[in-house]
Order: sequence, then C-alpha cells, then structure tokens
Amino acid sequence: MECGKVSRLFSDNCGVFGIFSFNGCIHDLYYGIFNLQHRGQKFCGISTLDKKRIKLLTHEGLVKHGFMRTDLTMLQGKMGIGHVSLKERQPIVLDSKLGRFALAYSGNIINSAELKMKLKKRGHSFSTGYDVETLAKLIGEGESIQDGIERMAEPVVGAYSLVILNRGSLYAIRDPYAFKPLALGESDRGWAVSSESCALDFTGIRLIRDVEPGELVHIGKDGVTSLSKLESKRVAHCAFEWGYFARYDSVIDGVAVRNARNNLGAKLANADNVKADKVSPIPMSGIGYALGYHRRSGIPYDEVYLYNRYSDRSYTPLEQAVRNRIADEKLSVVKEAVKGQRIVLCDDSIVRGTQIKNKVKELMNAGAKEVHVRIGCPPLIAPCRYSVSTRSYEELIARKNSVEKIREVIGATTLRYNTLEDFVDAIGIPREKLCLACWTGEYPL
Amino acid sequence: MECGKVSRLFSDNCGVFGIFSFNGCIHDLYYGIFNLQHRGQKFCGISTLDKKRIKLLTHEGLVKHGFMRTDLTMLQGKMGIGHVSLKERQPIVLDSKLGRFALAYSGNIINSAELKMKLKKRGHSFSTGYDVETLAKLIGEGESIQDGIERMAEPVVGAYSLVILNRGSLYAIRDPYAFKPLALGESDRGWAVSSESCALDFTGIRLIRDVEPGELVHIGKDGVTSLSKLESKRVAHCAFEWGYFARYDSVIDGVAVRNARNNLGAKLANADNVKADKVSPIPMSGIGYALGYHRRSGIPYDEVYLYNRYSDRSYTPLEQAVRNRIADEKLSVVKEAVKGQRIVLCDDSIVRGTQIKNKVKELMNAGAKEVHVRIGCPPLIAPCRYSVSTRSYEELIARKNSVEKIREVIGATTLRYNTLEDFVDAIGIPREKLCLACWTGEYPL
Amino acid sequence: MECGKVSRLFSDNCGVFGIFSFNGCIHDLYYGIFNLQHRGQKFCGISTLDKKRIKLLTHEGLVKHGFMRTDLTMLQGKMGIGHVSLKERQPIVLDSKLGRFALAYSGNIINSAELKMKLKKRGHSFSTGYDVETLAKLIGEGESIQDGIERMAEPVVGAYSLVILNRGSLYAIRDPYAFKPLALGESDRGWAVSSESCALDFTGIRLIRDVEPGELVHIGKDGVTSLSKLESKRVAHCAFEWGYFARYDSVIDGVAVRNARNNLGAKLANADNVKADKVSPIPMSGIGYALGYHRRSGIPYDEVYLYNRYSDRSYTPLEQAVRNRIADEKLSVVKEAVKGQRIVLCDDSIVRGTQIKNKVKELMNAGAKEVHVRIGCPPLIAPCRYSVSTRSYEELIARKNSVEKIREVIGATTLRYNTLEDFVDAIGIPREKLCLACWTGEYPL
Amino acid sequence: MECGKVSRLFSDNCGVFGIFSFNGCIHDLYYGIFNLQHRGQKFCGISTLDKKRIKLLTHEGLVKHGFMRTDLTMLQGKMGIGHVSLKERQPIVLDSKLGRFALAYSGNIINSAELKMKLKKRGHSFSTGYDVETLAKLIGEGESIQDGIERMAEPVVGAYSLVILNRGSLYAIRDPYAFKPLALGESDRGWAVSSESCALDFTGIRLIRDVEPGELVHIGKDGVTSLSKLESKRVAHCAFEWGYFARYDSVIDGVAVRNARNNLGAKLANADNVKADKVSPIPMSGIGYALGYHRRSGIPYDEVYLYNRYSDRSYTPLEQAVRNRIADEKLSVVKEAVKGQRIVLCDDSIVRGTQIKNKVKELMNAGAKEVHVRIGCPPLIAPCRYSVSTRSYEELIARKNSVEKIREVIGATTLRYNTLEDFVDAIGIPREKLCLACWTGEYPL
Repeated sequence: MECGKVSRLFSDNCGVFGIFSFNGCIHDLYYGIFNLQHRGQKFCGISTLDKKRIKLLTHEGLVKHGFMRTDLTMLQGKMGIGHVSLKERQPIVLDSKLGRFALAYSGNIINSAELKMKLKKRGHSFSTGYDVETLAKLIGEGESIQDGIERMAEPVVGAYSLVILNRGSLYAIRDPYAFKPLALGESDRGWAVSSESCALDFTGIRLIRDVEPGELVHIGKDGVTSLSKLESKRVAHCAFEWGYFARYDSVIDGVAVRNARNNLGAKLANADNVKADKVSPIPMSGIGYALGYHRRSGIPYDEVYLYNRYSDRSYTPLEQAVRNRIADEKLSVVKEAVKGQRIVLCDDSIVRGTQIKNKVKELMNAGAKEVHVRIGCPPLIAPCRYSVSTRSYEELIARKNSVEKIREVIGATTLRYNTLEDFVDAIGIPREKLCLACWTGEYPL
Repeated sequence: MECGKVSRLFSDNCGVFGIFSFNGCIHDLYYGIFNLQHRGQKFCGISTLDKKRIKLLTHEGLVKHGFMRTDLTMLQGKMGIGHVSLKERQPIVLDSKLGRFALAYSGNIINSAELKMKLKKRGHSFSTGYDVETLAKLIGEGESIQDGIERMAEPVVGAYSLVILNRGSLYAIRDPYAFKPLALGESDRGWAVSSESCALDFTGIRLIRDVEPGELVHIGKDGVTSLSKLESKRVAHCAFEWGYFARYDSVIDGVAVRNARNNLGAKLANADNVKADKVSPIPMSGIGYALGYHRRSGIPYDEVYLYNRYSDRSYTPLEQAVRNRIADEKLSVVKEAVKGQRIVLCDDSIVRGTQIKNKVKELMNAGAKEVHVRIGCPPLIAPCRYSVSTRSYEELIARKNSVEKIREVIGATTLRYNTLEDFVDAIGIPREKLCLACWTGEYPL
Repeated sequence: MECGKVSRLFSDNCGVFGIFSFNGCIHDLYYGIFNLQHRGQKFCGISTLDKKRIKLLTHEGLVKHGFMRTDLTMLQGKMGIGHVSLKERQPIVLDSKLGRFALAYSGNIINSAELKMKLKKRGHSFSTGYDVETLAKLIGEGESIQDGIERMAEPVVGAYSLVILNRGSLYAIRDPYAFKPLALGESDRGWAVSSESCALDFTGIRLIRDVEPGELVHIGKDGVTSLSKLESKRVAHCAFEWGYFARYDSVIDGVAVRNARNNLGAKLANADNVKADKVSPIPMSGIGYALGYHRRSGIPYDEVYLYNRYSDRSYTPLEQAVRNRIADEKLSVVKEAVKGQRIVLCDDSIVRGTQIKNKVKELMNAGAKEVHVRIGCPPLIAPCRYSVSTRSYEELIARKNSVEKIREVIGATTLRYNTLEDFVDAIGIPREKLCLACWTGEYPL
Repeated sequence: MECGKVSRLFSDNCGVFGIFSFNGCIHDLYYGIFNLQHRGQKFCGISTLDKKRIKLLTHEGLVKHGFMRTDLTMLQGKMGIGHVSLKERQPIVLDSKLGRFALAYSGNIINSAELKMKLKKRGHSFSTGYDVETLAKLIGEGESIQDGIERMAEPVVGAYSLVILNRGSLYAIRDPYAFKPLALGESDRGWAVSSESCALDFTGIRLIRDVEPGELVHIGKDGVTSLSKLESKRVAHCAFEWGYFARYDSVIDGVAVRNARNNLGAKLANADNVKADKVSPIPMSGIGYALGYHRRSGIPYDEVYLYNRYSDRSYTPLEQAVRNRIADEKLSVVKEAVKGQRIVLCDDSIVRGTQIKNKVKELMNAGAKEVHVRIGCPPLIAPCRYSVSTRSYEELIARKNSVEKIREVIGATTLRYNTLEDFVDAIGIPREKLCLACWTGEYPL
C-alpha cells in the first residue's frame, strides 16, 4: 500500500513520544520522533520542561528538515514530549487552572464535534480546529491532571494514546480499548514512552512492556508508576498496525511486526500451488510478506523494483502529457529481473486498486510472463471509522467487487488474499482482542 | 526618541485596522497595516471573511517582508481586520459558542493577570500568553458579540482600541477612556476603522471622525452604525501619541500631529533667547519640533544628520572594539553643517539620556561650537503603567535629576524642556481629557 | 530625482571599497560597502585575502540583507575589497599567469564590445557577460599587476575607479579622466580606498586625499604608495556626483556634496522673486537644494512630505485600479503643511517629468495654493553615454521641450532651473575639469 | 559500501545528461538528472538553448530540492544539458570566439594542473577552480566545436564523458578509453545522451547504444550523428560502475548492472560451503550480490536491515556520548530476523573497514550466531588515480592486511571476497577492456 494520501483513508496514526532522562531529554526525544516519522510526515513538534518552564516548538514538514541544531539547543530539560502527524500540529500547550501543560496524542476521537459543542455551551472557546484541543479542555476541567484525564476518558469515544507534560510530571495514557500502540522503555538514563518500540531501540532504550488498556502511567525520576486504570470492557488493538502502519522492526503488544508479516506471507504460500520463478515485494510495504512467502514456498526471492532514495514529492509537472510518460519516481522496474518471468508479487493491501494496477502493468510492459498478486491482509471493505467520512466507502475496490473482478481490473494473472481467519491466526492475538473493522465493518465502538 | 527598544518602556502601541469594502478588502487592508508599521515592527497579521470562512495569516517581521503576493491572493473577501505589533502575534481567532471570530487590539490591559485567574476558575484555559486572548474569552462568554463586548468592558481595566470580525460583521470599540486612537473613514468602496488616519489616507479613504470614548460601532454594507456606548466617566487620550507615537501626517481626536509638534516647537522658541546659527532635528522624531521652533524663532533650519534609508538592525558586530568605532548606522553627522556652528537641536523626549548624550557628543566631535538641546515634551518621570514593571522607573533620567544635572550628563550647552502647561496648551485638548501620567505620575486608572 | 530605475538612465555608479587593516579588515569592509549602498542595491560582494588565499562572497540584494554573521566570520584577513552594484555581481576572481586576483570597479567601459571581440580573437573566453571580466582579462595579460593595469588602460575607453586584490597586495586606480570618485583614507588601524568619503567616516577612517586622475596606488602594511600615473590629457569629474549620485555627507575631489547642493539651492534663490510661504524638498534628493534656497531666500523651511522608512519595493499590486488609488509608498503628503500654502518645491533634476508631475499634483490635491518647482541642475538633454542606448534620448523631457512647456506638463505654478554657469560656479570646480555631458551633450571621450 | 564520503576516495563520478526534444526538453532533462542523482548529491545544474540564448541554472543540493517549478518554466527550449556532482557546480557557460557554449562532464582529468599552467602561459585566465573550465578553454581554442574537442582530446589525460551545447547544436564525446559510461537513447520526441540508461528509461526514452570509445556525436533535429572518432589504443571501462557506482537498473556497455551483481553474488556462492540460515544484503549497495548468492546457494533470503527512507544528514549531535548511543540512522537492525541466526551478509566492497565492522557488531549485539561476510568485488588495494591523493592509499584496509586479518578486525565469523578472475568473468567483459586499477594498482594511463 502506498503511503501518504491513500493511508489517510484509514487512520491518522500520528506518533507520540515522551521521556524522562537524567542526562537531558532532547536528543532521545528528537531521535524518538524521527524514528516515528513513518506515522506522519506533515507536522512535527517537541515540548520540554526547562526549569519549570514549558517550551514548545513545532514545524511543518519532516523532523529532519524542521528541527535545526539551534532548536535542539533551545529545548533543554529532563522531561519532554514529541509528536509527528499527518494533520495536526502538536503538541499543544494550554494554560488552565491546573497551570500550563503540553499534550499530544495518537488516535482519533469519534464524537469530537459533539464534545466541542458541549464544551462551548459550558463557556469554552477554541483556538485551533484540532481534536487534541478538545481533549485538553476536558482534562483542564479536572482538579488535577490525573482527575482531568479520568474525567476526559468518560465522555470521549475514540482511540487515543496520549502523553501530557506539566510543570512537574510526565503522564501517558492509552484508551481502554488500546486501539493504538504505546510502549514503555527504560535505559540507564531514564524512562520513555513511545508509539512504537523502534523509536526506543534507536537510542538504546529497552522495551519493557506496553501501556495496558486504560492505564495511566506517571514517568519521573522514580521511574514508571502505574497511577490508575480505567475500566476496559474489551480490548481492540488496531490490526492494521501489524498489517501496514507500524515499522517493520517494532514490537507491538508482544507481537513483532516482522514476524506477523512474515507469517502472513507464509499463510499466503501455504495453500498456493502457483508455479513461479520468483517472489517479490512492492517496496517497502510488501517486503515482510514477500519474505515470508519466499521462505515457506521455497520460490526464490528477487527484487523487481528499485527503491529510489532521492524521491520527493516536491515537484510534479502540471502537463498531463508529461505525467503520462514518466515512471513511478519512487519505484523503478528492474527490467532484467522481469523479462520472461513468472512473478509472485506481494503487498499488504489493496485500497482503490489504482496503485497495484499500475504496478502490474509496469511489470507486464517490462516483459513479465505472469504476475500473481498476493495480498497479506483480507479485502478491505470498510473505512476506519475513526477518521473519515463514509464517502470513502465507495473508494474501496473490494466493497463491491469479487476477488475475480478485482483481478481482472488490476490485470493480474492470479490474485489471492489471506482469509480473515488466517490473518488473525498469523498475528497470533485472539480475535476478540483486535479491531478488525476494516475487514468486517464491525466497529468496536 | 529612538524607536524600538526604548519606546517599549512606554507602551505597546500596536496598530489595528478593519475594513468593509465592496471591491474586496485585501489591498486596502494590506496597505492599512503597512501604514501603521511605525506602531509595531515585530509581528503583523491579517484576518478576512471569505465566503463565511474566517481566514487568518500572521507573520513575524515587517508587513512588507512578511506578506507575499500569494498571501494576498489567499485572503479574499469584503471584510477583514489587520494588526501590527511589537509583542503579540495578532489577530487571533477563537471558536466559541458565538461561533468563530477574529480579533485584534491596540492598548494594554492592566489587570490581565487577575482577569486570567478568574477566567481559569470559571473553567477557561489559554493557548497563548497574550492579553488579547483574555479579552477574547471574556467576549466569548456573551450572548452575542455586542453583549460579549459589553460584558468584557466591565471588569477590564486598561486601554483598548479593538476590532472584531465574525462570520457576518465587523465591530470596533474604543475603551471609555479613549486612551488609544481609533479613526473612522469612508470611501466610495466602503468604510474602515484604523488606529491612525494616515493609514486611511494612503488608499484614498477619507477620515470622517474618531470612534468616541466607549463607543461600539458596527461596520458593514450599510455603513458605520453606532451600536452602543459604554459609560465614560472621564476621557484620557494618551498625549504621547501627539508627542511621539503617532505618525507625523495623522490627525487624532481632531488634532493634527504635525500641528501639535510644530506648536510644541514654537512654544520652546517662545521664551528662548538663545543665540544660534541653526535649528535642527534629531530625525525622524524631532522634525516637527525643529520646524516649529525654526518658524517661530526665525533661526535658519538645517539638517545636521543624514537619515540612512538602508539601515537595518539585522547585524551588529560582537566585538566591543568594533562597536566603539562605528558611527550611528541610522544617522550620519553632516560635518560640513556642524563645524563651528551654534546648533539648537530638537527632539521629542529624553528617556535614559543615553541616545541624546551620544548625539551631542557626535556634534561636538564634528566641531560644533554649541549644542542647545530643546525637548518638546516635559521631563518623563513615570513609566506608562499600561505596559511595564516599576523597574523602569529607575531608567528615567528625569526622575532623580534636575534639568541642570541632565544637561551636564548629556553634555549640552543648554537644555530646555516644555512645561506641562505649554505642552497641554500646544496640543490644544483640555488637560482633563488627556492622560499625562508619563509626566505627572497620576494615572487615570 | 527618484532613485532606482530612473537613475539607471544615467549611469551605473556602483561603489568600490578596498582596505588594509592591521586589526583585520572585515568589519570596516562590511560597513564600507554598507555606506556605499546608495550607489547600487542589486548586488553586493566582498573578497578578502586570508592566509594567502583569496576568498570571495557575493549576494543578490542589500548588504544588510545579504551578509550574515557567518559570512563575516568566514571572510578573515587584513586586506580586502568590496562592491555594491545595480547590475554586476562583483568582485570577480580570476586565476591567470599572474596568479589569482580579485577585482571590482565603478564606472562604465564604452568600447567593451570591441575589446571583448579582440580578446576572443586572442584566444580568451568569458564566463560572465560583465565588463569587469574584460578589464580583468586585459590586466591578466600583463607581466605583473602594475604592468597589466597599465596595458589595460591603453585600449580602454571609459570611466573606471578600480580596486584589485592579489595574493600579496591591494591596488587602486582611477582612470585618467577621473570620471568617478575615489578617495583615500587612513586610521590607526591601516588605510582604505573608497568611492566616497562617507564610507570612510563611518568607521573613523580619515579622508586624506582623492586618488589622482590616472594614478595607480598600492595599499599595504607600509601605507599608501603612488606607483605610477597614466597620462591625463584632461580631467572630467562627473558633475552629477555632486548633483545627485553621491551621499549628502561625502566630500569629493575637495568639494563637500552638502556645500555644493546648498550653493545650488542658494543660486536658485538668488535671482528668484517668487512670493512663497515655505520652501520644501522632495526627500531625500532635494534636501540640500531646499536648505540652500531657504537660507539664501529667508523663506521658512517646512516638510511637506514624510519619508516612510518602511517602504520597500517587494510588493506591487497587479490590478491597475488598486495602483491608481494608492499613494506614493515612500513619500506621504503632510496635508496640514500644504493646505492654502504657496510652496517652493526643490529637487535635483527632472528626467522624464513623470515623478515631479505626480508630486505637484499631490500637493495641489492636498490644497496647495501655488507650487513653484526649483531644480538644482540645468535641464538634462543627453543620456550618460557611459551606460545607455540612445533610446533614452527620447525619454528626457528637456530634450524637446522648453522650460515653459515642461512647467505646463508638470502642472507647476512656476518652474526654474539653474543655468549651467551657475551650476558650475556653485560646485566650484573649473568647468574644463568637469564632465557636463548630461547638460551639454559634449562627451569628453 | 556506504555512499557519500567514502566513495569520494574512488572517483568523482558525476552524471551528465543531454537532450534534443521536439516537445521541449526541460521535463526530460529534469527527470534525467534526477535519475542520475546517485552519481552526485552536492550540486546540480541545467543549461538550455532558448531561442538562440543559452540559459543556465545551477543549485547546491539535490535536484528535487534545488529546482523549483519557476526554474523549469524559465528553462525553455528544445535542447539542453544537465549535471549532478559531488564537487563541481556544472554546467558552466563560456563565451569564446566560438560564441557561447555550455558544457558539463563526468570523469577526472589527471593532468589538469599541468594543462592549466600551459593555458595560463598562453594568456588564459580562469574564473573557477574546476577542471571543466580547463576542458572548456581548450575546446574554445578550436576553429569550431568539433575542432576544439579534437584539439582538447590530444593533451588531456583522463576520463571524460562530456556534453556540449552551443547556439545551434548539442554534442557528446566519450574519451578514447571510455572510462565512464555514456548511453544514447531515442523516443518519439527526440534523442538523448546520458551517463546511465536508467535516466533514459524513466521518461520512456529507449536505450539504443553506448557512445563508443573516442566517439564524438552530434544530436539535433535529424537525430544522432557520429561526427568523428578519436583513436582509441585501448578501452578501459571502469569496472566499479558495475560493482558500485551505477544504479541497479542501468545497462552499461551492453551489460546490465543487475546481472553483473547477481553473477558476482553467484560466484561468491559457487565454492562456498558455509552453513547458514539466511543470506542478507547491506542495503542498498549489497542487494544485487545477496540476491545472486541466494539464488545460487539456495539459502533463504532475508532482510536483517530496514532502510529508513527519512534518513538525512542534516543534523548530527555534537556530543560524543549521544553519538555513541544512537544507531545507524539509515539502517535499523531487524532484531527478530537476527536472533540466533547464522547470516551470510553481502556487500560490494570494503574500504576502510569501519562501516562493515559496525554492521557486524550490530548483528552480533542483536544476537546473531554467526556473520559470514561476502564481498562481491576483490580486495581494494589502490585508490582511483583519477581523483585523489596518495594519502588514501593508507586508508585501504586491504592494502596492508590479509583477508584473515581483515576478518579479525571486522569481527566476522568468516570473510570471503571474489577473486579478480571471478570478478571479471561475472561482468562478462574481456579483462583488457576494463579498468581494474582499484584492485590491481595498474593504471591504464
């Protein structure tokens, strides 16, 4: 699945990071959000507590382009939180009767319009159009941060992995359904919380456990303390994290993303009797699936696409004629690997079908004999309710088309998806603990 | 008086502009705030109502550097407000139960800390540290914008000339003391409100009158309507507007700034029996004073300083040795006009005395025979309570020193100030209608 | 006369600065070109000799906007040259058989196309389209810098005040006609050469003398040495330097610009029997003239225009309707000083007549009773041959119109120019030593 | 092998592109150099012929960051050349007796200092320190472009694939040794020449053939014409193009880079009896080798590193402590794929050994049981004479160490290189037609 525009149909993932470090938090924080960059590329931000003052700096664009050395010099202190996002410029800082606090979250609030209207009636007014401000106002009504968080949790319907920094403490909470990941880590320098474990690994922070469903933790000089736990009627981990969102080297709720994707690839291979010369991924999303398929099937692995590291969406020609003749800037076809070959082509999902159709066509144009598309996740039939309008229902190719019809549309020799059973089985988490709404249309909330 | 740092001791003037134009407001608005630039150079901003949507764009820096052509293309609509400032990034936009509205103000709120605390107790929280947000929250508690403004006016102690834009209307209010100026204008294209008339003149908008003390006006397609008037126990126009803040070509509350400064120069000359070869200003602030002195005294006018239009504070050498040997970047001494001359040197005020001391020294070094300093405003003995800490009391040279002592310190041959009586008389507004706190220490509030 | 576009009809002045300083040259050099900024605003550049390495940095735009602190840190060394320009990015650096050298010049080469063709025939090729490269190639053909300069001087027809920096020395040369100014200065830190003395004054460097016509000087640790002198058949100082180009506080070839302009204003007043209430300049170019007129005539001085220090050509509205209604961004009319007044309005020159026509109209619209235009320089009838095509002949209003006709076109009550005799007399340099081609059409070359 | 700093020890590859297109050349040219970006990341430039005018635009940084839409709008015309580089800002434009022409090249001139000195003695002088200017001056001495190129070729010792654009024509030449690649392509819109075929493919231009050793071609509206051919005593294609420099999807001198690397991987596997669980590359340089090894050996393929597409060298912490604890920003270890595993790790070369040592250590730290390093190219014992000082001899780990010693230093379980015989055999070009100096120390020149 192509990153960017398409993935927005599904969720605004965002990434959060929070840290207490005896040595000063800024470098770990900077590299923390840098390693969460795949969760959001439009905005990034950092807030630290420096001598009782909460500092905030946000940028539009990538972490590596936005934050300069002078920024990092400015953001001193032992505690801080950071954020990357596709749509909201976070963290935000609020000054309420609880004093000043910064907060940032990953997830989506379903009833935010309703919550906002109620807050307005209670006299509140808003400076941004962001949901995070709604959460902040709710928390600010509490008698303390902890009380505020508990009060906020009551009316809020949605997914949130949230970090808060005030003048003395750092808090993190994961909603009772635990939709979005939130991992705890420790090092000899302190403790951290992160949307994904890969952002801990990078600076040598060891993953110790995941924040539990509904759990509120406090992170400070005495380590990680579990303050309270909201009642959790059911757990509903977003299965798409293993399928697409999370980075290949993260471990979420005890399951390594790499293992899940490898298993999913293996499941695809299990009952497959296709005769092929090679199995290849659509980089980067399809890699784990293709490797799993390759190992199980014994069919040799090959790269039929070359990933272009210099690709960048900064310029697109306006003329249609020019656009028609240029290739995919990010993925070049390796013609020598394609000519006369029967290829098993793996990816995670098919959304509208446009991208995979182009990919199949490119391979055929380059002389492929057969292209057998294998998709790790089951057919997508419902948009993630946590982020988008029903309009996008229509965009999902699997909603109204049979697998055979899709195959025809995308021009593949054969097409297979994993079944939902195999999908759940490969991840290895009980079905009742997963949110599978994208594939079933049954929303936990 | 040097602009910039020093003037901040006295007030954060800021400048506001609001407009309704049948032809589209953006160009008049852009040139409106450009012509208020002398009131604040650090931030500028514009908010317009475009097809029921309130748009906002603010920049750090000068209007001419900040706003680009694309910005102006983006800010469509018939109604808008703008702002320039030394400290707050305005306008701000708030979304409350009254819907979204933008606001910007010029002035200072004395009891903002107290108001903020009360608002927090009532459940409010704040996104910026700006006083304008406090005003906005108070207004947002009303049943309507008008009601909100009236409610806001009650607890607020301070000076404010304020413009508000919501999804249907443009409002402007001037506090009951009418500390800060606010002028109304009309053209064949619509109506406008501005901190100073010079910003109306530029695009051919005629000054029609000043907003009255405590008056709330509505500006729309039917013209300017006076909605209501807050009770005004006394009027207290800031006299420093005529003395220094306002632009030389503005007319405020019926008195042309140019005339006031010319009169003040004439007053200085009246009883002066100094023998001199020429009278000269410290540009730009002293020009009106010198011209008035020249005309009354009959002493020829000359320029002993050349104003450098390319001056810019972007770079200052770190090395003290270098700083010692470089001249004033903004004002070069015209040596040929100085050698052997007896000079009457006019300016508006002396704050710390540092700047005038340097100026006298430069002239003496260039060969002046005598330098007679003449100051248009009386000795400054109190900081403007509307903006700064008492710390600055100590910075005012006239607070603890006699005129003779100041003369000695600054190295002038002679030194004279206008008396408070002459000062008031020259402006031509009854003393009881002016705020003269800077020279008397008696604050109207 | 308006600066910028119009002045380009006459000459590409440019400004050069060269310095040897025991304390390191960069700050004096930076402030040197900053104080020559009025001679060219499009490009600026600095080259220094740092431990036998010639460094070069050029920017597009103003000195204050282009050079940052890091630039200045980079440009170390005791010797350097700098340049400001309206059209060429200088200094340039060339590596020839003489080794590497940097050079920059002020002036214009009339026969550059011909010189270039000859150089090409001799095997040379060019990297820029600049005349300075032609000069550099000619110099590079010498056996030494000095020999090269002497060889260059022979075929070159035109005006040049030139500075050269090689790995050991700093040279300056002024063409035999001495068209363009070039001043020598000294301080306790070293020696400098500059297009104008105002750029020496700023950092406390004393003007010692002008470089003589055809003189080649060497500047180094032993001071200023006159190396040789090209034969000078006649001297032809550009009289427009005193009339318009040079800064008001400079002294050129022994004559202070301020004095020249004051004298020119006095000459205008001498035989003038106009009855007026005030005399005023068009800032900034007309100031010296108005002051001279005022002092001689005894008519009071006043400012009818306010100079806007925030003016900046960065944005101009595309819509003609908007352009029609906006005022002159740089000069606001002070209406209170104009209403019902008879005004003597002074400026240096009239080129096309467009600008002065607008100025007269503005004053009339503001209620002036009479506007008597007085022009310090005689009528312009010929373009400066050193820079532009004959096309501009047509643009000069005085070429085909009588003074009375011009008066009618510009809408003035009366109009007077200085005669050429008075003009020369006021400057105080023998007529045969001046280039007066702009007013006579007789070119020295 | 890591790109960037290290590769500079070997060669300044640069990339050139030239095109004639009936539809306008700019888009193909832009995407042409974008697809050569791997050959140089520091500078990029484009020159086009627009209505007889040669336009030039160069930038520092990546093609995608440097060239904006407005740039491309400005660079009109049917013919143009482009360049990417690690050290020289090209193309350059020269105006000689042949008129104006632009040129750019890929390669290195060994005797440039000597050539420059001779040129200086003949009266030439230089504006840049670039070798390309030396080539340009030599060409400019000819009677025509063709004559100039032929004259240039005589004294020049070195590698050059060069493109030239003058006011009427586009030329390309490859030195007689044909060190560096240069490919010709055609489409329905015109013809192009490119350092690599991958840059042709991108916009649908078909590779037709390589420019031959010493061949000078003309490209214009009548297609590609072979104008002349310099005598070629021997051919010496740089073998490192297949080993490392060229992009995986290019075809050079008839040999697909992908096939060469796959063959090299297979050669490594041929006589290898290592027992391993998986074979993995160091991305991106090792991919082709690992895939070849995998297919020949039958050992499963896996990714033990994740390539981070957001990596960017814009920021590196100054503190050593921080640098010690952060991981490789570009390549994250996939721990789940490493724990307890016996890994065959493939890459193209070992230069200093630092990078591979770190990679082996990372895998060991992540729990690898064994790491068998397999290197596709033979041990590097000589720097590329075409670019660097002998200093770098010392930096080559294989120069003074046995394979066993290197294995010890880098901490690998086993280490194997391809032999030179296998290396040549795998590429499939006769040994006498290759430059193998990096591995033999025998330079063709």
